[in-house]
Amino acid sequence: MADLNKLMENEAFMAFATYATIILLKMMFMSSATAFYRMTRKAFANPEDSASFGKGENAKKFLRADDRVERVRRAHLNDLENIVPFLGIGLLYSLSGPDLSTAILHFRLFVGARIYHTISYLLPLPQPNRALGFFVGFGDKELEKSHF
Amino acid sequence: MADLNKLMENEAFMAFATYATIILLKMMFMSSATAFYRMTRKAFANPEDSASFGKGENAKKFLRADDRVERVRRAHLNDLENIVPFLGIGLLYSLSGPDLSTAILHFRLFVGARIYHTISYLLPLPQPNRALGFFVGFGDKELEKSHF
Amino acid sequence: MADLNKLMENEAFMAFATYATIILLKMMFMSSATAFYRMTRKAFANPEDSASFGKGENAKKFLRADDRVERVRRAHLNDLENIVPFLGIGLLYSLSGPDLSTAILHFRLFVGARIYHTISYLLPLPQPNRALGFFVGFGDKELEKSHF
Repeated sequence: MADLNKLMENEAFMAFATYATIILLKMMFMSSATAFYRMTRKAFANPEDSASFGKGENAKKFLRADDRVERVRRAHLNDLENIVPFLGIGLLYSLSGPDLSTAILHFRLFVGARIYHTISYLLPLPQPNRALGFFVGFGDKELEKSHF
Repeated sequence: MADLNKLMENEAFMAFATYATIILLKMMFMSSATAFYRMTRKAFANPEDSASFGKGENAKKFLRADDRVERVRRAHLNDLENIVPFLGIGLLYSLSGPDLSTAILHFRLFVGARIYHTISYLLPLPQPNRALGFFVGFGDKELEKSHF
Repeated sequence: MADLNKLMENEAFMAFATYATIILLKMMFMSSATAFYRMTRKAFANPEDSASFGKGENAKKFLRADDRVERVRRAHLNDLENIVPFLGIGLLYSLSGPDLSTAILHFRLFVGARIYHTISYLLPLPQPNRALGFFVGFGDKELEKSHF
């Protein structure tokens, strides 16, 4: 265990672990948001989901796409597309012996940008708010990558 | 290599590695299921895929969305949305020096819940079967997270 | 830090890190490709995105699905579905003390197959080009898995 303890003593890795956990929990929140909008707006993808809201033809009308639900789903997918590279590149960056304060700045920028992206997408805010969140999060990974 | 050998000697990490591999292979199976339903139900997304099933107008009619195919695709995306956080949070949890039997219980619960979610989605079973699979897998990660 | 330095001295892990970074950057390129096609073909998913291209009814007509955009999005999702398992299984494989040249061969096969998959999907090339890229990338992970 001695070696693992040393991994847990590595401050850049621990900073990565903290921010990775924060952004993963934020991403998991998108599932709850989708479920919330599906229930309140009665817009389901599967007959077995709408069954408790009515029978026969009545249930069928709840099998529909809803703007608000699709918006959350796009935001969720965009999260996946951006957080997966962060988990890989951020981990390698944190293990490459970066300057600690630079590393924390990178992780904060990424996490902040993705939270801003989500807020811009769900409200929604006019462009280029969401684009800004996207590009800061996108570019931040490119910068991390250039360090190792 | 001494240090890596020690990582591989860490029982909680090895348990995580085992269950992560199982659930990733299960997720990869979803690609095969999609391909299977696309072929047997002749429902394709790309003209080059349906080309071998006919020519001209005949091929075009196979460019369509099919309930069964879309169901597998939703189950696959739901897997991605839930297994990516598990890979991150489960890894950090396994490195945080957890009690081994508690860790194994967490990993088994998550993997079992996701397999149950897939079965409920594909058969499909009436709700709340799939919801149960989802929430146990979802909550299990929140619990793991609370340990570190 | 001694132990982490040893991780960074592990050649199989470093090879994995290199190829994982390459394929993650390739996947991130898909976001740029989607944005490019959405702008040049004026096909948006959100009203706030099309707002700068016209007002009122004029903006609404740009809220549409476009074949080329949907093609890139499917390729991107297929990347996610295949690269996520690679990150997990490839990492564990690289830590399991594999023969270095075999490991590099595996990583190159996977990365090469996925790049070929993307090219086949976006041009597109007739089948079975894309299927070949898919199955080589898919099978390569199964082989890596069988080594540990």
